[in-house]
Amino acid sequence: MSKGRLEAFSDGVIAIAITLLVLDIHVPSPGSHGGLAHALGEEWPSYASYATSFLTIGIIWVNHHAAIGRLRTVNHTVLFLNLVLLLFIGLLPFTTALMADYLRQSSGEGLAAAIYAGSLLAMSLAFLALQRYTLRLRPDLLREDITAAERVSIYRRSRAGVLPYVLAAALAAVSPYVTLAICAAIAVYYALPSSVSAGGDGEEGEEMAGLS
Amino acid sequence: MSKGRLEAFSDGVIAIAITLLVLDIHVPSPGSHGGLAHALGEEWPSYASYATSFLTIGIIWVNHHAAIGRLRTVNHTVLFLNLVLLLFIGLLPFTTALMADYLRQSSGEGLAAAIYAGSLLAMSLAFLALQRYTLRLRPDLLREDITAAERVSIYRRSRAGVLPYVLAAALAAVSPYVTLAICAAIAVYYALPSSVSAGGDGEEGEEMAGLS
Amino acid sequence: MSKGRLEAFSDGVIAIAITLLVLDIHVPSPGSHGGLAHALGEEWPSYASYATSFLTIGIIWVNHHAAIGRLRTVNHTVLFLNLVLLLFIGLLPFTTALMADYLRQSSGEGLAAAIYAGSLLAMSLAFLALQRYTLRLRPDLLREDITAAERVSIYRRSRAGVLPYVLAAALAAVSPYVTLAICAAIAVYYALPSSVSAGGDGEEGEEMAGLS
Amino acid sequence: MSKGRLEAFSDGVIAIAITLLVLDIHVPSPGSHGGLAHALGEEWPSYASYATSFLTIGIIWVNHHAAIGRLRTVNHTVLFLNLVLLLFIGLLPFTTALMADYLRQSSGEGLAAAIYAGSLLAMSLAFLALQRYTLRLRPDLLREDITAAERVSIYRRSRAGVLPYVLAAALAAVSPYVTLAICAAIAVYYALPSSVSAGGDGEEGEEMAGLS
Repeated sequence: MSKGRLEAFSDGVIAIAITLLVLDIHVPSPGSHGGLAHALGEEWPSYASYATSFLTIGIIWVNHHAAIGRLRTVNHTVLFLNLVLLLFIGLLPFTTALMADYLRQSSGEGLAAAIYAGSLLAMSLAFLALQRYTLRLRPDLLREDITAAERVSIYRRSRAGVLPYVLAAALAAVSPYVTLAICAAIAVYYALPSSVSAGGDGEEGEEMAGLS
Repeated sequence: MSKGRLEAFSDGVIAIAITLLVLDIHVPSPGSHGGLAHALGEEWPSYASYATSFLTIGIIWVNHHAAIGRLRTVNHTVLFLNLVLLLFIGLLPFTTALMADYLRQSSGEGLAAAIYAGSLLAMSLAFLALQRYTLRLRPDLLREDITAAERVSIYRRSRAGVLPYVLAAALAAVSPYVTLAICAAIAVYYALPSSVSAGGDGEEGEEMAGLS
Repeated sequence: MSKGRLEAFSDGVIAIAITLLVLDIHVPSPGSHGGLAHALGEEWPSYASYATSFLTIGIIWVNHHAAIGRLRTVNHTVLFLNLVLLLFIGLLPFTTALMADYLRQSSGEGLAAAIYAGSLLAMSLAFLALQRYTLRLRPDLLREDITAAERVSIYRRSRAGVLPYVLAAALAAVSPYVTLAICAAIAVYYALPSSVSAGGDGEEGEEMAGLS
Repeated sequence: MSKGRLEAFSDGVIAIAITLLVLDIHVPSPGSHGGLAHALGEEWPSYASYATSFLTIGIIWVNHHAAIGRLRTVNHTVLFLNLVLLLFIGLLPFTTALMADYLRQSSGEGLAAAIYAGSLLAMSLAFLALQRYTLRLRPDLLREDITAAERVSIYRRSRAGVLPYVLAAALAAVSPYVTLAICAAIAVYYALPSSVSAGGDGEEGEEMAGLS
């Protein structure tokens, strides 16, 4: 199994998951009470969740490439950890729909939000496991030009990227709106070019700092 | 992040979005009033929207390649602007279904048409933002064989490609049929080979002039 | 636009269309009359249509590659004709579902079968148009090692591949079962390795003779 | 048809099938009896089936690459056998949903489980057919560095990989839970890195031993 094939397959799964998100946005039935404008307005959690999940998957895609790009070769464990990561990315269309459908309900909304943030947390933990394995346990799998200092720094950032999702999941007990707002803020913060301006917005596409 | 990976991922999302459009065409329930021929006839807005959106996404795909092909390298801002473009392309299966389901209704049809044209407008504005960034703000990201005159001319065409969608969205207030007809006309005009005959239909696949 | 990108995008659309076919097979509602075995048995048109459409798209994929592989370069017309071909391939999950849902009905079954065969006919006509353009009108787009005699012979086979679908569509007036049987027979005939045994089953993957 | 295109297309179909699995997990209707937690808990067969099928398809993907990677060239029969394999992989979102929907029913659950295990069996038999053709009947299609001893050993493992699914399908008559448990155990066993520790977890991504 070459790195190239691993990337191509992962790209495929990520591209499909990101595009399936749109299936969670429903066309209101014609003739529904209050008219189309009202019905579409009621669906705002779907739009917010779509944008949040879309950006988040986009960021994980960027960082996934950076992670695989650092590798010199892949072994069975990398394949397995990558498959687990894809499994959680593949779940996002479901947890996004769950969040969108329950956000404005008076029952179950906290649980739905916790599951949504939890699925993002699971995804970032799966990514962290992949990073930990290659950066700390098996640096021999990495390209030779990656220094020990770089490995420490990349892994530290990866670990930090997990924390906001812990917070988002925990605060679902307070309000699902808070959870969605945190998840959206994380996505926008890391996706926005300005967020890496400190890093110089250099060419060659450095990683989006979050989730990495 | 190499150009190649950016193209491959974008191709994936665009190919999936264009293929998901078919899910908006529903098989009539057997035994529906008036027979299958009547039921299928009633669904003509679905077929017209499918063809319009399919051709439009096909054109944006061609032009996306031309735009990325001009780049020498990509940076974080390009990744971000590309992600926003993909986000709006990914929305089209939803807005296409909305248009198709409401076109013949007596309520909401104008709003649905405005949203449909608006989503195409948003897609072309996202593409324009990507063009503006690379052609005007950061020409250093472009390949060196692209002259300043070419940059001006390509950007001017991109800007002009936005206007028909402004018109299509505005005329939704008059009639949703007018909106769909304009969007369809734009797609056919730019997709048809004859439309670039002035440009010689040269080999090497020059851009489809619209939306570019 | 390079040949490679055209192939990659077309591959994507074809792979998605072929995989979306499974969405047409429905899980019977638990507790339906007669039990699961009965309910699944009633759905045999879905399985037959799935297999038929899957093999047919698989064959068109093989032949699409052969056709693009013959090209030296692509122009706007090739892009357009290819987009029209993809548009009809993208419709197959709909027409396959239509066929499967109506085959055993007492009303609309002939029309549904005619539309199914008609969509396969439209797909093969779109492919024929692409073949005609490159093989007859613009042989300068082809690789230089393709002789005039080869061009004539390939085009003749392409034209012949259209006829069985004309027959299948026409016989829908007699019986939808006949239509499905013809479409299935075409798919199996061209997909089965034995069908090209006369050609030697050579290496290097010569075309599947049908639809080409 | 080059090996590369065959792999790219197969990758596409496999990536889509694996990602469509999520469509089988349904968001409970708000306001359902017993609350969201209860409703989600009732859906555990969906989660178990999702994970099982996801891992299984992931393993078949790895082994598919190993199989194609051994080839020097492809012929029509390889294309055909590969298409049949993809046809069964494409069916898994349906059989997975069938299993998940019926597992806890009091009627049809055995049949649904048998069909699920049967579809995995069909997939592994299709893979075995591909292996048999290239390893035993047409070793001239293989790369020259693959020895006769290797061919025998790889084929033997492939044949052994089929047996557990025969068992899983047969035991559906006893209990659908047993069937799902066996299928899940197979997936976890072969996916887990530890399972190949005997083989050294070497670099260069040797095959996942199962299903191969």
